[in-house]
Amino acid sequence: MARIAAGLGIALMCCAGTMDLAADTLPSWRDGPSKRALTEFVDRITDRSDAAYVAPDARIAAFDNDGTLWAEQPIYFQFAFAIDRVKALAGQHPEWRTTQPFKAVLEGDLHAAVATGNKGLLEILAASHAGMTTEEFHSTVMQWLATARHPSRGRPYTELAYQPMRELLDYLRANGFKTFIVSGGGVEFMRAFAQRVYGIPPEQVVGSSGVTTFHSTNDGKAVLIKAPKVEFIDDGPGKPSGIQRFIGRRPILAVGNSDGDQEMLEWTVAGDGMRLAVLIHHTDAEREYAYDRNSHVGRLDKALDEATARNWVIVDMKQDWRTVFPAVPSSSD
Amino acid sequence: MARIAAGLGIALMCCAGTMDLAADTLPSWRDGPSKRALTEFVDRITDRSDAAYVAPDARIAAFDNDGTLWAEQPIYFQFAFAIDRVKALAGQHPEWRTTQPFKAVLEGDLHAAVATGNKGLLEILAASHAGMTTEEFHSTVMQWLATARHPSRGRPYTELAYQPMRELLDYLRANGFKTFIVSGGGVEFMRAFAQRVYGIPPEQVVGSSGVTTFHSTNDGKAVLIKAPKVEFIDDGPGKPSGIQRFIGRRPILAVGNSDGDQEMLEWTVAGDGMRLAVLIHHTDAEREYAYDRNSHVGRLDKALDEATARNWVIVDMKQDWRTVFPAVPSSSD
Repeated sequence: MARIAAGLGIALMCCAGTMDLAADTLPSWRDGPSKRALTEFVDRITDRSDAAYVAPDARIAAFDNDGTLWAEQPIYFQFAFAIDRVKALAGQHPEWRTTQPFKAVLEGDLHAAVATGNKGLLEILAASHAGMTTEEFHSTVMQWLATARHPSRGRPYTELAYQPMRELLDYLRANGFKTFIVSGGGVEFMRAFAQRVYGIPPEQVVGSSGVTTFHSTNDGKAVLIKAPKVEFIDDGPGKPSGIQRFIGRRPILAVGNSDGDQEMLEWTVAGDGMRLAVLIHHTDAEREYAYDRNSHVGRLDKALDEATARNWVIVDMKQDWRTVFPAVPSSSD
Repeated sequence: MARIAAGLGIALMCCAGTMDLAADTLPSWRDGPSKRALTEFVDRITDRSDAAYVAPDARIAAFDNDGTLWAEQPIYFQFAFAIDRVKALAGQHPEWRTTQPFKAVLEGDLHAAVATGNKGLLEILAASHAGMTTEEFHSTVMQWLATARHPSRGRPYTELAYQPMRELLDYLRANGFKTFIVSGGGVEFMRAFAQRVYGIPPEQVVGSSGVTTFHSTNDGKAVLIKAPKVEFIDDGPGKPSGIQRFIGRRPILAVGNSDGDQEMLEWTVAGDGMRLAVLIHHTDAEREYAYDRNSHVGRLDKALDEATARNWVIVDMKQDWRTVFPAVPSSSD
């Protein structure tokens, strides 16, 4: 009898755990078509009796970062980091005072700097991220994340990760997904916080990268030095190529928020079986930002038409999200 | 009492599992300095009371493939695949009959083809691997692996994976390691069998790669086409750069067998804390092959001196391995 009771106890503990999970599913998401599309997709691809069932090892989910997992206004957060680095290094680079895009950065004309486009942005990133070992760069990013504050919100940048997306990542992992970041952001920049903020380890972060060169000294201090040269831009058509290169198979679920994500979403849903493409639409001027077709940062124009035409899930931040940012700093921050 | 007995039962089951694991550790490895170095390293970095303890999420192990996880003689197995592809495609490329390295391949002069070096090899790989979608390439490799046989051994190439190394991969994973391939071989070629043969999923394979380009048709058939252009060579100093790019941190254990692995091993052991560098030395002319300083394939010269000078583990295949290849096809093959 005691043995039966003990057995029942184990069974009850097991079921209580399952029920808690169900009750806690995506609490920051309001009931509605977006949440329903996500949970129905997960229910189906995890149900062995469903034709849409996907084995756990193929449950690959790809997430853009800027504007999808955390905010990206008024400028990409990595660009804010780069600006601080350019200012710190300007004394060693007098030529920057007369050369765009550095001139604009040093003069505080961020609009002009952003207007140089992705190419200009990546030049600033390369110049401000180079000339040090990969470990030194990691330390620099960690220090900046610990001290820098968002200009209008006054919070550390990592506290501007979206609470509903953190819940979505947890929910997917609890259902056997392997979650990846696939972002135009610099891979080493994102790796400095992806584990802590998103629960995504360094090796599951795909991003833009610069060349690194191997140097070995006689005393065994082998290092990689970050060269001021862009190696790979993980944006637009680069995203499916980046996924193929790093992950080696099509995701079954991909989430983005801008035209730079369109090819990733197209490639994802073109695979066999059930697939889901999701766009985060920034519609909440009050709690976050409202922008799409005319934004310099995170422009969402062509991909919004595409999403509408193809019935991709379009998350309306204002309608679909009960909360946007964590209310108080999470204990892990 | 019954409850206590049930509790004891669980405890005993737990310990029985642990004991089985210990008894089965590396059965194809003879007791000796190599096996001892591997197990002592794992014992120490998994022991919380040891100063060398490493948290599970940092237990990254990197393995070269050709000559380290499977054989590489008389020619790299991927090169054998490429030769079969070049022959199949030669009718569409009449210029190959007069252009090296293709001329040599088509004339069956493999020595001349290999003599064109890594650059020539990669040209053959790029040309023979391009002009199709990534999915089509995957199918081509799968078909080849299922039908091709090693010229002198008559076995499928995947049966020439080293049994002791498969055990080592299992042993490391059972101790919390995440195992990666880091090889000069083509990343998409290796991914076709890495899961089945080594238990390593596609996203944990780092290798050389060709450019892929995104193509989208109006009917939603988005694909990546493999372009005949080398993108990245994951060999020599490229290995630490490849690890940094794909994995994002230094391994604590790296295993290779040739000069192309030297920088990876140097960079691995130059990290903080306890690290292990291992070289597989091909010393068994009878059961496998014996070669090192004078071999065209898998030359081991500088790295052998380095390994001796730095006390890296040098695995003597003839002495250290009880078996080399699985005696019978494994049930999963």
